[in-house]
Amino acid sequence: MPELNETHDATLTSWVTSANAPDADFPVQNLPYGVFRRAGADEPFRVGVAIGDRILDVGAARGAGIIGDAADAAAAACEDTALNSLMAMGPDAWRALRSAISRVLRADTAEGRDAAARGEGMTIAIADAELTIPARIGDYTDFYASVHHATNVGGMFRPDNPLLPNYKWVPIGYHGRASSIVVSGARVRRPVGQTKGADQERPSVGPSRLLDYEMEVGAFIGTGNQPGEPIPIGEADRHLFGLCLVNDWSARDMQAWEYQPLGPFLAKNFLTTVSPWVVTMEALAPFRIPATPRPPGDPAPLPYLTDARDLASGGVAITLDVLLLTPEMRAAGLEPERLSRGSFSEMYWTLAQMLTHHASSGCNLRPGDLIASGTVSGPDPDSRGCLLELTRRGAEPVRLPNGETRGFLQDGDEVIMVGRCEREGARSIGFGECRGVVVGAG
Amino acid sequence: MPELNETHDATLTSWVTSANAPDADFPVQNLPYGVFRRAGADEPFRVGVAIGDRILDVGAARGAGIIGDAADAAAAACEDTALNSLMAMGPDAWRALRSAISRVLRADTAEGRDAAARGEGMTIAIADAELTIPARIGDYTDFYASVHHATNVGGMFRPDNPLLPNYKWVPIGYHGRASSIVVSGARVRRPVGQTKGADQERPSVGPSRLLDYEMEVGAFIGTGNQPGEPIPIGEADRHLFGLCLVNDWSARDMQAWEYQPLGPFLAKNFLTTVSPWVVTMEALAPFRIPATPRPPGDPAPLPYLTDARDLASGGVAITLDVLLLTPEMRAAGLEPERLSRGSFSEMYWTLAQMLTHHASSGCNLRPGDLIASGTVSGPDPDSRGCLLELTRRGAEPVRLPNGETRGFLQDGDEVIMVGRCEREGARSIGFGECRGVVVGAG
Repeated sequence: MPELNETHDATLTSWVTSANAPDADFPVQNLPYGVFRRAGADEPFRVGVAIGDRILDVGAARGAGIIGDAADAAAAACEDTALNSLMAMGPDAWRALRSAISRVLRADTAEGRDAAARGEGMTIAIADAELTIPARIGDYTDFYASVHHATNVGGMFRPDNPLLPNYKWVPIGYHGRASSIVVSGARVRRPVGQTKGADQERPSVGPSRLLDYEMEVGAFIGTGNQPGEPIPIGEADRHLFGLCLVNDWSARDMQAWEYQPLGPFLAKNFLTTVSPWVVTMEALAPFRIPATPRPPGDPAPLPYLTDARDLASGGVAITLDVLLLTPEMRAAGLEPERLSRGSFSEMYWTLAQMLTHHASSGCNLRPGDLIASGTVSGPDPDSRGCLLELTRRGAEPVRLPNGETRGFLQDGDEVIMVGRCEREGARSIGFGECRGVVVGAG
Repeated sequence: MPELNETHDATLTSWVTSANAPDADFPVQNLPYGVFRRAGADEPFRVGVAIGDRILDVGAARGAGIIGDAADAAAAACEDTALNSLMAMGPDAWRALRSAISRVLRADTAEGRDAAARGEGMTIAIADAELTIPARIGDYTDFYASVHHATNVGGMFRPDNPLLPNYKWVPIGYHGRASSIVVSGARVRRPVGQTKGADQERPSVGPSRLLDYEMEVGAFIGTGNQPGEPIPIGEADRHLFGLCLVNDWSARDMQAWEYQPLGPFLAKNFLTTVSPWVVTMEALAPFRIPATPRPPGDPAPLPYLTDARDLASGGVAITLDVLLLTPEMRAAGLEPERLSRGSFSEMYWTLAQMLTHHASSGCNLRPGDLIASGTVSGPDPDSRGCLLELTRRGAEPVRLPNGETRGFLQDGDEVIMVGRCEREGARSIGFGECRGVVVGAG
């Protein structure tokens, strides 16, 4: 667990003045990493750091000699076309680079004054950049760590048996598709597949009619482990690089027909969207909270999933909103409407428990692998992180302010996910957006 | 579907005389690709072709000027450290390179005489080489295409409901773990995980006691597809590069406890072994047979999975043997004992059906992705491709000639899988071996 240090000081400001707005997602206390190039330019992607409405070009800062020796190797790793090289270096390198970049972007340091004086070459506007997927994701794993989601969804797929007996013992997860992970903004083509209603004698094939989103948090693996060498839970945090937002688009009608006995396949593998900015675990240190207490009567986690420090600070207080913008709303100039607000602090399993469980079989994790949390749903009706739950499989459509209703997504609908961390005494930080517009099956 | 051509001529022989033995897996009609380097040498891995007991160094042949212009680009792609570059080039390039390599390795051509005269530089003994995983596998998908396996296993996990209603409509598959795929010969550490017997009140954690193998066939994707662009079944064959053997090691006790509702996870992600040689679809052309006829009363495949040519020749006649060598047998100097003999011609779904179904949602496949068939089991008791089926979950252990018995695998046991294609009028070819020794959880 990263300790609080100078980079978290809530009074710090940046010479990039947009970063100092109280509602900015990327103040100088955040410093999330992404991979960018100038939009339309024939140049390689490289690693940058979001600051206000701009991106610090880490390579440019290194070239200007203001990164410093302690972080030079980590800054050099930012010349990779993805974050994998930096992720592989481990927590000491990550800490050194964050400290150096903090000094480069602060208003009160010599490095910051130097960088500010250099002007345009050091940063570019986010609006002028093309952002790509932040890591080469070797493997993508999706967990199912919200007991509220598992209970709600389980009740719809298996009314007589919503929460299976293994749920409170095993952090349930499955392997997802890495090839179809795209960055925020990529269009989401409605998938085609087999579906079969309970009243139909045989399945039919066509565009999914029950297209849904799932609001999830994704964790990028930093350093990996060797095959056959588990990761003790006390060391799990050292293997986590940072978090992003994930939209695990799901075709519910395809899922219901295909998922037994081996789990979801085509219902989810057509596309998964991630947000472009990876908020590091170090940036999230002020927002760590105790793991969700287990309700009385629930079993204690097994010893390999139990750690005093994880119990005390295994949670991360992230508020997660899902917003919807329909074509009619867009045409009328309306703002996106919030469908739900959930909290990542409501999860049944911590990130450390998920990671340790994953490696406990001997499975090797690699830098850049993505572990998603599963849909983040809380106990309240408006904290449900997918339409399947919010609308009870379409039976209770959400009503939008312009009179439209939605049971599931229609073509042209844009889903926008945002995440934000706020805490008394800490500077608030955000994740930026994870967006996608549904387009017809074509 | 590749047509038969000169390279398939059963009368051809090679100047590498070991290739001409009737029982050789790698005669000049086979020409499987692998990735090798001299054992112990500090040199890059590169692509080679197995011929008898030797490996043709494709780069060396190109360097000697005996590959020819038509195949030069494909031969240059063999300087990659994996087959991905060659896989991405497509069927025309694959055909050109096979034709060129056939000429280089034949006894009756000028190129062959030239190569033979050059001697050691052109080939190295397989025994002197280190073989590695043949492709960078971006995603690994495991199907469940044997109805016999699905029925046998389903009956053990769900006695009242062995074959689910979707089975005969949907080529069931799930995403596996790519990071833990290893090449034949790598040791298999017994996985550790949660298990819970029906008579136990709570799960316990420890080394799996029901470790099993699964005999599968793996298909490597050649050219991929773009996200959102399905692959029509009539074009599926053009996207398949070649086949290998796969051992999908499985911890049955962990699987039974964890697999609901999202499918197998830790029970399989600790390790998967592939054979080092990829037998191309072109080499397999003489062994294509009609797809398995569906039993009367079974539904016809849906239109997107139906193709006249696939019906006529979607099967591949591969005989698949699983052999076991225990530590006691090894100490006594005994030969491995065959546990089962299955046939890949018994599958319910063809490779083209699996591939087309996979991409039908819009999921993109990439060069080097691996699609495994699922356990190859036939209708007869001795054609069952895993111990779970062979021993009825350990209740009827197999008896070995030295008096030992096995319900599941013990530490020190070596599982050896082999595959061979034989047909009247064609030169028999083989896949080589897919081996792994189980070692203790440590």
